[in-house]
Amino acid sequence: MAAAAARAALPRLNLTLPSSSVSLAASPVPGPRAAASVATSAAAPPQPLVTTRLGDVIEAQQFDRAALNEIFEVAREMEAVERGSHGAPSRVLEGYLMATLFYEPSTRTRLSFEAAMRRLGGEVLTTENAREFSSAAKGETLEDTIRTVEGYSDIIVLRHFESGAARRAADTANIPVINAGDGPGQHPTQALLDVYTIKREIGTLDGIKLGLVGDLANGRTVRSLAYLIAKYQNIKIYFVSPDVVKMKDDIKDYLNSRGVEWEESSNLLEVASQCDVIYQTRIQKERFGERIDLYEAARGKYIIDKKVLDVLPKHAVIMHPLPRLDEITVDVDSDPRAAYFRQAKNGLYIRMALLKLLLVGH
Amino acid sequence: MAAAAARAALPRLNLTLPSSSVSLAASPVPGPRAAASVATSAAAPPQPLVTTRLGDVIEAQQFDRAALNEIFEVAREMEAVERGSHGAPSRVLEGYLMATLFYEPSTRTRLSFEAAMRRLGGEVLTTENAREFSSAAKGETLEDTIRTVEGYSDIIVLRHFESGAARRAADTANIPVINAGDGPGQHPTQALLDVYTIKREIGTLDGIKLGLVGDLANGRTVRSLAYLIAKYQNIKIYFVSPDVVKMKDDIKDYLNSRGVEWEESSNLLEVASQCDVIYQTRIQKERFGERIDLYEAARGKYIIDKKVLDVLPKHAVIMHPLPRLDEITVDVDSDPRAAYFRQAKNGLYIRMALLKLLLVGH
Amino acid sequence: MAAAAARAALPRLNLTLPSSSVSLAASPVPGPRAAASVATSAAAPPQPLVTTRLGDVIEAQQFDRAALNEIFEVAREMEAVERGSHGAPSRVLEGYLMATLFYEPSTRTRLSFEAAMRRLGGEVLTTENAREFSSAAKGETLEDTIRTVEGYSDIIVLRHFESGAARRAADTANIPVINAGDGPGQHPTQALLDVYTIKREIGTLDGIKLGLVGDLANGRTVRSLAYLIAKYQNIKIYFVSPDVVKMKDDIKDYLNSRGVEWEESSNLLEVASQCDVIYQTRIQKERFGERIDLYEAARGKYIIDKKVLDVLPKHAVIMHPLPRLDEITVDVDSDPRAAYFRQAKNGLYIRMALLKLLLVGH
Repeated sequence: MAAAAARAALPRLNLTLPSSSVSLAASPVPGPRAAASVATSAAAPPQPLVTTRLGDVIEAQQFDRAALNEIFEVAREMEAVERGSHGAPSRVLEGYLMATLFYEPSTRTRLSFEAAMRRLGGEVLTTENAREFSSAAKGETLEDTIRTVEGYSDIIVLRHFESGAARRAADTANIPVINAGDGPGQHPTQALLDVYTIKREIGTLDGIKLGLVGDLANGRTVRSLAYLIAKYQNIKIYFVSPDVVKMKDDIKDYLNSRGVEWEESSNLLEVASQCDVIYQTRIQKERFGERIDLYEAARGKYIIDKKVLDVLPKHAVIMHPLPRLDEITVDVDSDPRAAYFRQAKNGLYIRMALLKLLLVGH
Repeated sequence: MAAAAARAALPRLNLTLPSSSVSLAASPVPGPRAAASVATSAAAPPQPLVTTRLGDVIEAQQFDRAALNEIFEVAREMEAVERGSHGAPSRVLEGYLMATLFYEPSTRTRLSFEAAMRRLGGEVLTTENAREFSSAAKGETLEDTIRTVEGYSDIIVLRHFESGAARRAADTANIPVINAGDGPGQHPTQALLDVYTIKREIGTLDGIKLGLVGDLANGRTVRSLAYLIAKYQNIKIYFVSPDVVKMKDDIKDYLNSRGVEWEESSNLLEVASQCDVIYQTRIQKERFGERIDLYEAARGKYIIDKKVLDVLPKHAVIMHPLPRLDEITVDVDSDPRAAYFRQAKNGLYIRMALLKLLLVGH
Repeated sequence: MAAAAARAALPRLNLTLPSSSVSLAASPVPGPRAAASVATSAAAPPQPLVTTRLGDVIEAQQFDRAALNEIFEVAREMEAVERGSHGAPSRVLEGYLMATLFYEPSTRTRLSFEAAMRRLGGEVLTTENAREFSSAAKGETLEDTIRTVEGYSDIIVLRHFESGAARRAADTANIPVINAGDGPGQHPTQALLDVYTIKREIGTLDGIKLGLVGDLANGRTVRSLAYLIAKYQNIKIYFVSPDVVKMKDDIKDYLNSRGVEWEESSNLLEVASQCDVIYQTRIQKERFGERIDLYEAARGKYIIDKKVLDVLPKHAVIMHPLPRLDEITVDVDSDPRAAYFRQAKNGLYIRMALLKLLLVGH
């Protein structure tokens, strides 16, 4: 959202500028941004905390604990709204129109946003593959497309292949923009649903012990999660990954600056025995290019299987952003601690909460 | 639907396990199935009739006469529901969300399901081409996709390129699954609309004389129809097809076991003069590979044209699953006995009926 | 719409057969048409004015001033309907179902039609790329597709790659058809929104001075606009274009026959200083084939920039059908006379008006 007039009509939500310059983007390519821009870019210098309104959802860093709490509270309310769908469907967003502008396909994310809108009584304009837009193919800028689409809808959910695209869209639009993933950049609603799932499953965020497993170098998910979880107290993080995809120094430095305890380990079973949450991720083949041998070595190294379940505490859970290949074996699925499909479902509640907060307020 | 808990909330509908091992699949490749699975696979041994509930729609064989009668009765009621759309639109499925998960495009089938859902006041999540899913492309299993999508919707309509995919999906899901075609396997809603159309056009199913014309070897449509019609009394079937695409022995044996009279004929006019229904099908070029000469010979052999109309009884009808090429000439379209576009329309009523029965009951 | 019975139920709207044989199609390829067809084809001989009903929207030529006035009046009312969406959403088209049958992608046009339907309380069946229809790919005719889809919906919006396709669809269908662009043929809703924008921005259509700039040879937009604007009094048109893409003689002859004053100019600044409306268009690279040199020369020749703004009258506006490349510089966007995004928005109101008029009347 760019215009002050439009912003004035929006609900209030506390939102904090990050006090650190850490980048969550694997390959940060910040786009142009307006002077009035709310969230900081990857390269922004440290700034004092400020409180403002939630106009757009662009980056995981834009949320402080108060904002997270409000979103999670509304998300929790959404479970009842969804349960009531058949008898007493919600009309909270009746008459509102969401445009899903997806420049690369992501059916899981798109469907959960569209389900969220509909569970609240709203309507949807869909593009499954906006990149083949005749107008984009003819050379139209993203900004011009946004100026057109904002005339037809009340909120835009944007998935784009370029880092920074969501910020550019938000700086252009007079209606709210939600970043549903911009290339190697950000995917803030995924980060929100991950933190919400930990809270929902474990009951608390302060004091948790979290094992991040798999591809920690390239996955924007674990990087965003590390950042967000650092906002809570007495966090301990274990990094368990093949050497070729270790967590990068920027996140380690950031955790140090926040006083978050972390360590690297190559012993998955030992880590599992001490954690509240094991967050497994997929080793991304496409990152290895022609070095298939390195990929094969990396992918088989840390698998969540029955042996991990045997040592995992009873109250702990296993999470995964999905899709998974074989980094979690299917015989784990039936264990009550396998939380990854509940985690996917939480994506619905988080997106319902964001749509409600952005369009009509709490 | 897999879970007993979910099933308990569903409406009752009589449904019979088939007493024969005949396969409707041109190339049966049964998928894995749960022990609690309701319908039989192609390879199942003969079983006694049992009555259970309609939880999913997977195979034509799952329906007995009582189930068919109930579906047809509700389908007939749907004509009035559709007529009332503009003045008094139905809210029967208000608050329900259907996900159309199409791994291969089939716009006709998809649009009729989506129209059915909307004519009943329900909402739709659409995927036109789920095969290009980022998650499927990354190697996610169908089962994992189903577990995610069931969190966002109340019913899944699945079109897949693999025989047995619908059964696998139903064994995984805790919400109802409708098979909208699984490769060379089944397309049960097409079979239902075909039988419904005969009943609607002729007024009865017992005692009808049915001519099946065209590609009888490869068309799952005529194979399913032969199976379903055999549940009625005093049926006579004529097979009229080029030698290269004759009806296979499994169906002939099945008809014999049910006491259904059938004969093969190469005289389309003679058959047409004696039938209540002529069911024409397209010769599928893709089945002939490089033998274009055989295809060309086969495709021109049995054409429905004015000469057929001249001998066809006044009360009889011509059906076709569509799309048609030139196996029915366009000058036939204006004859009142040309029932194929009414047949396509009946697909709407049958799908409305199934959605209503699966989601809220009769 | 073909059937008299269906037509009888439709609202009345004055509609005039054109009195000239001018073609708006850059490459007119008229399709087959029924004897009862309402609008004239490109090749039709001069005919007297007749008044009939608006059953379909096929060609810009079908509208007379009275019809245009009624459409514009309803479009104006739609602004209030849209503003009321959140508090009191319209139910005018509740229970109505629009099928968007797009044989080539055009997300801008499709989204504006779908937004229009939803702002009026109606529902949508979408095809983003019907050309990959399994049935079209298998050789089904457009007519057969239309006969099927009309069974599932109340109105069809058709985008096709063949000139004349919309007319063929309308001659087949028993429900209204709107042409959303048929190849090099027509795009009547674009023409309507252009004329509506002039009226809305300037306050009048009679007496306006209009500069058409850019590719005047190939753009169906400027050709349609020249035709429609000629229905008004005391119009003056300036043509400003590179020599290779000059306005063709058929339009010039037509303007002469209507007594419309026109002149060609190579001085954009002089024209801009005298106009009420500057209508800029994109030079279409695809028209130049391998002559990239000619394209580059043509595209840079007439640019709307700050220098044009300096001489443009205060009350005048700049229009563009979008997408734009660099034929209007982005520093023009913030000038209040830059009307092109308001013009895109007017597409929503015009399409709302047409849907309302075609489905339930004024």
